[in-house]
Amino acid sequence: MKKHNFSAGPCILPQEVLKKASEAVINFNNLDLSLIEISHRSADFVAVMEHAKDLVLELLDLKDKGYSALFLQGGASLEFLMVPYNLLPEGGKAGYLDTGTWSSKAIKEAKLLGDIEVIASSKDANYNYIPKNYAIPSDLAYVHCTSNNTIFGTQIKNFPKTDTLLVCDMSSDIFSRKLDFSQFDLIYAGAQKNMGPAGTTLVVVKDEILGKTGRKIPSMLDYQVHIAKDSMFNTPAVFPVYVSMLTLEWLKSLGGIEAIEKINEEKANILYQEIDTNPLFQGVAKKEDRSNMNVTFILTDESKKEKFDSTWKAAGISGINGHRSVGGYRASIYNAMPLESVQVLVNIMKAL
Amino acid sequence: MKKHNFSAGPCILPQEVLKKASEAVINFNNLDLSLIEISHRSADFVAVMEHAKDLVLELLDLKDKGYSALFLQGGASLEFLMVPYNLLPEGGKAGYLDTGTWSSKAIKEAKLLGDIEVIASSKDANYNYIPKNYAIPSDLAYVHCTSNNTIFGTQIKNFPKTDTLLVCDMSSDIFSRKLDFSQFDLIYAGAQKNMGPAGTTLVVVKDEILGKTGRKIPSMLDYQVHIAKDSMFNTPAVFPVYVSMLTLEWLKSLGGIEAIEKINEEKANILYQEIDTNPLFQGVAKKEDRSNMNVTFILTDESKKEKFDSTWKAAGISGINGHRSVGGYRASIYNAMPLESVQVLVNIMKAL
Repeated sequence: MKKHNFSAGPCILPQEVLKKASEAVINFNNLDLSLIEISHRSADFVAVMEHAKDLVLELLDLKDKGYSALFLQGGASLEFLMVPYNLLPEGGKAGYLDTGTWSSKAIKEAKLLGDIEVIASSKDANYNYIPKNYAIPSDLAYVHCTSNNTIFGTQIKNFPKTDTLLVCDMSSDIFSRKLDFSQFDLIYAGAQKNMGPAGTTLVVVKDEILGKTGRKIPSMLDYQVHIAKDSMFNTPAVFPVYVSMLTLEWLKSLGGIEAIEKINEEKANILYQEIDTNPLFQGVAKKEDRSNMNVTFILTDESKKEKFDSTWKAAGISGINGHRSVGGYRASIYNAMPLESVQVLVNIMKAL
Repeated sequence: MKKHNFSAGPCILPQEVLKKASEAVINFNNLDLSLIEISHRSADFVAVMEHAKDLVLELLDLKDKGYSALFLQGGASLEFLMVPYNLLPEGGKAGYLDTGTWSSKAIKEAKLLGDIEVIASSKDANYNYIPKNYAIPSDLAYVHCTSNNTIFGTQIKNFPKTDTLLVCDMSSDIFSRKLDFSQFDLIYAGAQKNMGPAGTTLVVVKDEILGKTGRKIPSMLDYQVHIAKDSMFNTPAVFPVYVSMLTLEWLKSLGGIEAIEKINEEKANILYQEIDTNPLFQGVAKKEDRSNMNVTFILTDESKKEKFDSTWKAAGISGINGHRSVGGYRASIYNAMPLESVQVLVNIMKAL
């Protein structure tokens, strides 16, 4: 049965990527060996890592602009710690925008290393909007924001303007929309939404901002160590990196971020339009801050819940239950989600 | 062509494991979804994680003995930092046995957090033996050792006897030989030798030793946080954990560690016997400290090198070049290596 996978992450990946990944587990590059049983120092895998890093910089239009790409481990959760370790001097201060659960977690970890100021927060309305018109203090080592809030379905459209460093957790919308990525000094993203399987974390960092805090940084938490070793300071997560490379190749072949952004807008538009015109549904996030990746909505008539749930389940839809902290529904429509799957959901909503 | 994969790691895995892993990338548990595109919170994946942790404790005979098993990220390299963070009080002292490159790296990271005493070292002879008859100071928070030294081909046969905590990096020989694993308070191992693909790290820790240092530990580095969240504090490396589970199932079906130990001894014996009786070869590690996982040897007559290398290459052997810091050859004969592959190598050595 054809499934329609609306999971928030780990989530849908392109079918052709899954096929190639499955084949590589048996026989990689016609070596008669599995991808996962060769040395990460072999020419075949080094080529994967280099190609993956190149594709990242090319797709983000950051080639030859002083940035390095890294594929690390530990997810965005470890980046919450690595960012202040690498960018916050002892006794220094950083500013964080609090737009959801993941921002809050980033703030909590950063507080272990210094003075953290919450510049603005939308916690007062269960994070259903993105704060605007906030003042940014002038004494910050960096400003940190979360571009897309998976749980609440909001997305930053205008990023903070600041003279200091700008750091962004793009775990749930990287590679989904055209931005001037050079406005950021450091971008990080867990792979498991638009890039690949869980187990690797992309970091894109401007080289010149590093090595300036005076801290003694443990090797595994030091971006400069990883850059010096071409993202192979320790054994990388071979399979997740390979699948990420395949997904980035797929994205490039489609026409890159500009091409996928059009498709993503189309998918989001038909879903939001149904939410806005069908009286049985209501969106959770403020309209101007709506995410094109995670569409959160509720039923206005709870008596319809049983019918709605059984209908989408019967249609092969999975993963659209809302996060427990929001309730309702969440349709995650990442890059690899086909328009037809969104149409299947919309048709069910129409017919309810 | 049938390959004989002697790679030091990532390394050979059982063929049936590779086959199942490849299938799961297309269709996992007959869900019509890939393993790598479902939520890590789904019942199907939670069952994988729980089963993998259970198998670890069962195979190590540590069930119901107060230990927790965790599948984390960051490799042994991140454990080098996590161990002192969790076990070394501020101002405390720990003792390390220095038996090779990986021990040295563990020492380097631990020094960032406290006073580290090298109890004994075999650096004087390029780590070709395991130090013995060393004194262990009485004021240590823990003693750390590396059970098997992949690069140098040595293996600890008798572990340090101490009244304090005993911590062991078993990255390259876990699950390969019967030990009283309850003599250790904390064991860690990167998956990519005897357990699975690169990208996940096994930690087995006695619960009662944690939470006693008084340190503020960052969440991702805190074993208690990971234990409280059943190894799902953040999104785990889904595919590497699944393949590890498959490998542990395979090991259990063979008869567990006792059964594989006999096979491992047989493989090592025929290879060491050839090295010891063939005048063209010489072992690198001291006989009494030889590893049954990584067999290091050199040619005594360099003029035979070209012929030897071309012959093993033609026979489909890969991954037996020695590490650059030792030279010569290294045949890694982990659990999944078939006896026949070792026989192919021995026959080539005999005919040289």
